[in-house]
Amino acid sequence: MLRKACFLFAPCSPGLGCSCPKDFRILAYALKPFSTMSQFSRLSDDEILKKIQSIIPPLTYEQHKGQSGRIGIIGGSEEYTGAPYFAAISALKLGADLAHVFCSRSAAPVFKSYSPELIVHPFLSDDDASDQMKEWIPRLHAVVIGPGLGRNPKIFKTVLSIMEELKKQEKPLVIDADGLFMITNNLEAVKEYKNVILTPNQVEFERLCHAVGCDTNSDIDEKQLTLSVSKLLGGLVIARKHRHDIITDGVDVLEVKANGSPRRCGGQGDLLSGAAAVFFHWSLKTSFGQKSREVSGSHPGVLGGYAACLLSKLCAESAFGKYGRSTTTTDLINEIHFIFQKHFEKHTQKL
Amino acid sequence: MLRKACFLFAPCSPGLGCSCPKDFRILAYALKPFSTMSQFSRLSDDEILKKIQSIIPPLTYEQHKGQSGRIGIIGGSEEYTGAPYFAAISALKLGADLAHVFCSRSAAPVFKSYSPELIVHPFLSDDDASDQMKEWIPRLHAVVIGPGLGRNPKIFKTVLSIMEELKKQEKPLVIDADGLFMITNNLEAVKEYKNVILTPNQVEFERLCHAVGCDTNSDIDEKQLTLSVSKLLGGLVIARKHRHDIITDGVDVLEVKANGSPRRCGGQGDLLSGAAAVFFHWSLKTSFGQKSREVSGSHPGVLGGYAACLLSKLCAESAFGKYGRSTTTTDLINEIHFIFQKHFEKHTQKL
Repeated sequence: MLRKACFLFAPCSPGLGCSCPKDFRILAYALKPFSTMSQFSRLSDDEILKKIQSIIPPLTYEQHKGQSGRIGIIGGSEEYTGAPYFAAISALKLGADLAHVFCSRSAAPVFKSYSPELIVHPFLSDDDASDQMKEWIPRLHAVVIGPGLGRNPKIFKTVLSIMEELKKQEKPLVIDADGLFMITNNLEAVKEYKNVILTPNQVEFERLCHAVGCDTNSDIDEKQLTLSVSKLLGGLVIARKHRHDIITDGVDVLEVKANGSPRRCGGQGDLLSGAAAVFFHWSLKTSFGQKSREVSGSHPGVLGGYAACLLSKLCAESAFGKYGRSTTTTDLINEIHFIFQKHFEKHTQKL
Repeated sequence: MLRKACFLFAPCSPGLGCSCPKDFRILAYALKPFSTMSQFSRLSDDEILKKIQSIIPPLTYEQHKGQSGRIGIIGGSEEYTGAPYFAAISALKLGADLAHVFCSRSAAPVFKSYSPELIVHPFLSDDDASDQMKEWIPRLHAVVIGPGLGRNPKIFKTVLSIMEELKKQEKPLVIDADGLFMITNNLEAVKEYKNVILTPNQVEFERLCHAVGCDTNSDIDEKQLTLSVSKLLGGLVIARKHRHDIITDGVDVLEVKANGSPRRCGGQGDLLSGAAAVFFHWSLKTSFGQKSREVSGSHPGVLGGYAACLLSKLCAESAFGKYGRSTTTTDLINEIHFIFQKHFEKHTQKL
């Protein structure tokens, strides 16, 4: 019985193969009774949607360019140019005002040619990339790290150094794709940094589990496993792509129940990461987001991650309904406006 | 009472923090009684629209390529390629026959890939750029300076030198974005040159105010402040992007009352600058435009600037109605034809 209780409520538990000491588990449980441990988890899907609606900035005529979000995407290599484009254009279509892509020199002309809406900085492969980046960091509201980044060790070194500066300035980060590969081998780069959402797919999540010492082969509840990994990383947010996406900060655990699409074409995760950066920024901007986790009882990244996963699933479902097996990520991105208007925009904000 | 009169009618006034001597203010007031000071300002919105319609060149089957406008755009750098594209394609969609983009060598292949409609000259970063430009200046009807120009001092030096030649040939200029940053630090490059429209947004306008010695913190009327800045620059046209755009040549002050859109995505100002170049050229081509300011009583740039601001606001409003928060500048540009037909084209000109 005690074992079951630990399994249900403790930050990690025996049987998960986690390595934190028993005393810590008991202490954590004692300090966080169930009622305060699950602010979001106790809400209905409709109530969560209302919370999401409350963080969406109203569109007023008094706003200036940039106020709805200046999003940075760090990614793009010689091989991969589609991923950061999808993340950047998704951020714009969701309502961000500006999207900056920071990529390798060889990838830049290609990005630019995809769309004149993007601002592309081609210095990521330069020797002084971290220095060049310092000029831009203060202007960014949130940053996605990883889409199409590739696995060049020199680029990883640069990006890890840029991450140090981003963390110093407390920028909200979303880490996906090769960015996850990078941090799986450099866990200290994210550990204990609260302003981060990881968006792993199944393979990336398993890699993360192994890195933190969790056993993925046990016959355990996927939500609890995800929660445990988050907890072992110091309570950062994991928005795990799954049959029903799982979002947790090691305290709350939410599940996105929308169906999504059976189509598994590449690029869908990039829509999600771009959207997560925008929602995370919006969430942090509100009074709810500006309160500390202890005061508000909820992590703004959980709401941001949940909103992005829900948007992504609904876009996928809608696009699949139209294009079936032919659906590609561009079709999903074309659904953003329609899905946002239908499910996310408060009616009073419709103009 | 005297103070109030100065505030209303003089080119600048006490309380605005302007630095021109009191005697000059009084003299200006004495020379320009109210009745001749505000030719456009006394017209209704409908009357202004009729004036705009009167400058639009009729589309006849006898015209040759180029007669409706050969527009130059000086801009485009390594980071920014979208902005000059938006300006150039907007000029074409509004009815100009040819759009030439003069950009840095690294930006050229990207522009070309956006659209086969543009003519792209990649010599702006060359050492002899001003010399190469001399060949093209006589062929251009109006030139936009600044979209995506970047802030490279070498490029600024080149562009300032090109501006000298443009002014010698009395070409109408529209200065926006980084071009405004450039001239804010080189006011003599535009001071007293009448054939220029500056199109600042809020931040750029504040920078301009400080450069001419006006205090933006005073609790004063925005129209009067804009008028004062124009006057201090010798009566050039300012088309200031605002909740309701303000257009002035230091004498007339017009306000565009169209709603526009609450969406503040990047690139909207580039549509405006491209359109301003075309309208300014059309305005100057008419008999009204060819008369001097003293004879016609109105600055052709005020009409050009007003028309561009109105078009831009109406396109934004229409696109926002369709795409809401997902609206990007490409959506606005797609509205140009529809908005122009509906509001600007004289019915008799319909073919």
